[in-house]
Amino acid sequence: MDEREGAKRRIRMVVAYDGTRYAGFQLQLGVPSIQGELEKALGKLLGGSRTVVFGASRTDGGVHAEGQVVHFDMTGRIPAEKIAFALNTMLPDDIRVTDSRRAADGFHARFHATGKLYRYSVWNARHASPLHRLTHAHVPVPLDMDAMRSEALTLVGEHDFRAFQAAGAAGGSTRRRVHRVRLYQQGPHIELLIHGNAFLYNMVRIVAGTLMDVGRGQVLPGAVARALTSGDRLDLGVTAPARGLTLLRVFYADDDQADAYFGVPLR
Amino acid sequence: MDEREGAKRRIRMVVAYDGTRYAGFQLQLGVPSIQGELEKALGKLLGGSRTVVFGASRTDGGVHAEGQVVHFDMTGRIPAEKIAFALNTMLPDDIRVTDSRRAADGFHARFHATGKLYRYSVWNARHASPLHRLTHAHVPVPLDMDAMRSEALTLVGEHDFRAFQAAGAAGGSTRRRVHRVRLYQQGPHIELLIHGNAFLYNMVRIVAGTLMDVGRGQVLPGAVARALTSGDRLDLGVTAPARGLTLLRVFYADDDQADAYFGVPLR
Repeated sequence: MDEREGAKRRIRMVVAYDGTRYAGFQLQLGVPSIQGELEKALGKLLGGSRTVVFGASRTDGGVHAEGQVVHFDMTGRIPAEKIAFALNTMLPDDIRVTDSRRAADGFHARFHATGKLYRYSVWNARHASPLHRLTHAHVPVPLDMDAMRSEALTLVGEHDFRAFQAAGAAGGSTRRRVHRVRLYQQGPHIELLIHGNAFLYNMVRIVAGTLMDVGRGQVLPGAVARALTSGDRLDLGVTAPARGLTLLRVFYADDDQADAYFGVPLR
Repeated sequence: MDEREGAKRRIRMVVAYDGTRYAGFQLQLGVPSIQGELEKALGKLLGGSRTVVFGASRTDGGVHAEGQVVHFDMTGRIPAEKIAFALNTMLPDDIRVTDSRRAADGFHARFHATGKLYRYSVWNARHASPLHRLTHAHVPVPLDMDAMRSEALTLVGEHDFRAFQAAGAAGGSTRRRVHRVRLYQQGPHIELLIHGNAFLYNMVRIVAGTLMDVGRGQVLPGAVARALTSGDRLDLGVTAPARGLTLLRVFYADDDQADAYFGVPLR
C-alpha cells in the first residue's frame, strides 16, 4: 500500500566516496560536495522539487568514506533496493551508493547513530607512494609504534575531549566515549582504527596527528592524558591531513558491533 | 675517482607510479608517459643533452607499478642515493622514485631481469568502490574461488604460453616459466599474485581475465590446460582491464626471492 504513487517513504543508504575532489560532505554553494552530488542524482531520478539528503557525518574536504549513511524521503514506485543501482549510473565514479533500503519513517542518519568507526592511514617510508597518495598521510621518518600504542590506549573510555577539537568548534557537551583504538602496521602501511560513540569536529585527525607526533618524538608521551586533564589543545600534536581519514562505518542501535573490523585490518 | 665531474656513472632506480593518467611506461610523442616524465625531471636535474631512461617493463597505459626498475647514465657529482630525493621534488605526485643507487656499468634494467612479480586486484562486490576504482577491476557477480585456484595452478611451470599474448605481439620464443601463482581473498578484495621469469605482452591480463571468467562460469575449467596445448588465444577468457594490474617488483640475479610477497598478501 505504501508503494503506491504518492506515498512518502524514508530511504536509508550507505555511501562510499573518494573525497579528494570535494569540499566535504555538506552542501556548499559553488563547490562540489558529496551531498550536492547525491541531491543532483536524486533530482534526475525522482524529478520534482529538491530531495534533501541528511548525512550521519559531515566529513571534511578530502576525507573519504566507505560507509557514510544518509537518509531522505521520496515518493514514487522505485523499489528501495533498486535506488542504489539507479543512482550509481548517474553519480561520478568517485561516489557510489553501496546499499539502499527502506527505513522507519522516524529514522535519522545523524541523530540515531550510536557509534562511528574511522580509519586513519599512514604511508611510513622515506618516499611517498603514488598509489596511496590520496588515502594516506606520508610520514618519511621512522615511528615508534610502541610509544604510539601506549598513547592510544589512554584515549579509551568516557572523557571530556574538549582539547581534541578544532578551535572555534560549536558548543555543547564535549564528553565522548572511545570504545576501542588499535594501531596496525604492515611494512610501510600503518592504520589507526578508532571506534567511539561520537567524535568532536577534527577529533580523529587531532588524535592521529598527536599519535604520529609522539611516534616521531616531537610530542612527549603522556600528551593525551595531560590534554584530557587540562582541556588544552596545545598539549596535543598537529591535526593530521584530511586525506588519511576514512569514515568506515556508522552504527545504529540495530547493529553496533565493530568487532569484525578490528579482526581484519590493513585491507 | 668516479665521482669526479665528467665521469659517467650508471644509475639504477626503483620507480612507483599510478598509471591512470599515462599512455604507458614507454615514451610516446604527444601523450604523457612514465619514461617521458622521468626524462623531463632528469633533464632539469642534470641539464645537458637528453638522458635516456631504460625500463625493465613496458607497462601499458593505466597499469601501475610499485617496483618498476630503470637505468640511465649520468655525469656530475650528485651522490646516487640523493637522486631519488631530487627527482621527487620535480616529478608529478603520481610518480615517485623510491630508490636510487649506482649500478655496474653493464647493468641493464630489462635484459638482466631474472623475474617479475605482478599483482592483479579485483573488487568483487555488487557495487564498485570509489576508493579502489583506479587500482581494481570491478566484478559485480560472485566468483568461484576454488575453481579459480585450481585453474591458476595449471599455469605453474615452464610452458609455451603463445596463447597468452595479445594478437599481433612481437615474434621470438613464447616459452616462459611461471614460478608461483596465488589467489587471496579478504571480503570484497581479491588479489592474484604471479611470479615468473618473464611475461609475454598482455599475458598477466589474459591470465587474470581467464581466471575471472572461470570464476563466474563464463569459461569452462581446464581452459588454461587446453590453451597451453592448442596455443589458441580463443581457448582463453577476456583480457582483464589495465587498471587492476600493478608491477610489484623486478628481480635480478643478486636478489630474486619473491617469498616475502606471498606471505604478506592484501596490503
